[in-house]
Amino acid sequence: MLREITVNTKDRSQFVDVTAQVRRVVSDAGMESGIVNLFVPHTTAGVTINENADPSVQSDMLRGLAEIAPESQGFYRHAEGNSDSHIKASLVGASEQILVDSGRLVLGTWQGIYFAEFDGPRTRKLHIKLQPDPA
Amino acid sequence: MLREITVNTKDRSQFVDVTAQVRRVVSDAGMESGIVNLFVPHTTAGVTINENADPSVQSDMLRGLAEIAPESQGFYRHAEGNSDSHIKASLVGASEQILVDSGRLVLGTWQGIYFAEFDGPRTRKLHIKLQPDPA
Amino acid sequence: MLREITVNTKDRSQFVDVTAQVRRVVSDAGMESGIVNLFVPHTTAGVTINENADPSVQSDMLRGLAEIAPESQGFYRHAEGNSDSHIKASLVGASEQILVDSGRLVLGTWQGIYFAEFDGPRTRKLHIKLQPDPA
Repeated sequence: MLREITVNTKDRSQFVDVTAQVRRVVSDAGMESGIVNLFVPHTTAGVTINENADPSVQSDMLRGLAEIAPESQGFYRHAEGNSDSHIKASLVGASEQILVDSGRLVLGTWQGIYFAEFDGPRTRKLHIKLQPDPA
Repeated sequence: MLREITVNTKDRSQFVDVTAQVRRVVSDAGMESGIVNLFVPHTTAGVTINENADPSVQSDMLRGLAEIAPESQGFYRHAEGNSDSHIKASLVGASEQILVDSGRLVLGTWQGIYFAEFDGPRTRKLHIKLQPDPA
Repeated sequence: MLREITVNTKDRSQFVDVTAQVRRVVSDAGMESGIVNLFVPHTTAGVTINENADPSVQSDMLRGLAEIAPESQGFYRHAEGNSDSHIKASLVGASEQILVDSGRLVLGTWQGIYFAEFDGPRTRKLHIKLQPDPA
């Protein structure tokens, strides 16, 4: 089953927690066990799993990523000014997979699922594909 | 079903668009819906999804990755001189998954699938595993 | 089928080769073909595929990652002092997928599967989910 959720981002770089929406898709489908495949159909955004407790983790990560791939570099040739966003998208990755067991996402205590915006604000999509285990 | 395509790279660092080959494997198999799993069986190359329009995006990304993991660092000990290639391979990742719906790859408008060479030129392989949804 | 292995790490940053354990799970399950999905339920560790031959590759990679995301940065706000570990976890990724064919992991000659510790030493878990192909 292929589902899609919409994510509205507010900043150029932002992590948006989508754990609850992914959980709802699994629960609405009544999936007991299997895999949830997440896919971002954009080239300046990604999806990642990281800490859901202290918000300073997410801001430190965004600052760290801005050091790793700076917004401005003398050698950039792409005219849209978002080469750093494309680099970050490939570093973080366009897809993620989450295990499902006993009807629940198998996530660690501190883990959340984040839509990673690197060229916002925009209206974005996240594709969710369920692969239930055979009965 | 496990398939394999060959990719000939021409530069030390290069993104090779393999979208058409992946699409052909799906279409030849007549897969209507499911998942395509891509896997790179090399340790100095990867696979990533990024922009298929302006070629300057790919060259900016390669330049950016060369800043992130420089080819030469005083602390490298590996004698083959490709430690940067191994680092880039793990940053970009050895695998990728693409959703399939109505017989088509579910990719965003600007997305292409790229074999990411980081220690070429070489003759490389890309494994393609199809997981069709149950009928 | 969902399995779990325990990984004891000894350093703050360390790659632990878990290839043999993953292979054993596949072989114990008698899986002939399909996919092995690996998932790390922690936010300061990841899983990656890289070279299993010269150990200097792994030490160069860890040194390179420490340059990419330094342990100490003036702008870090997270009080636990492991913001770099969270960044590295998202760069390397929390999940990996390995193809299985003829009862064997489809890995390249030089590839091993590594649990990537970025905030050890700790006792860690790695989830292993098998998706056998339909008979």
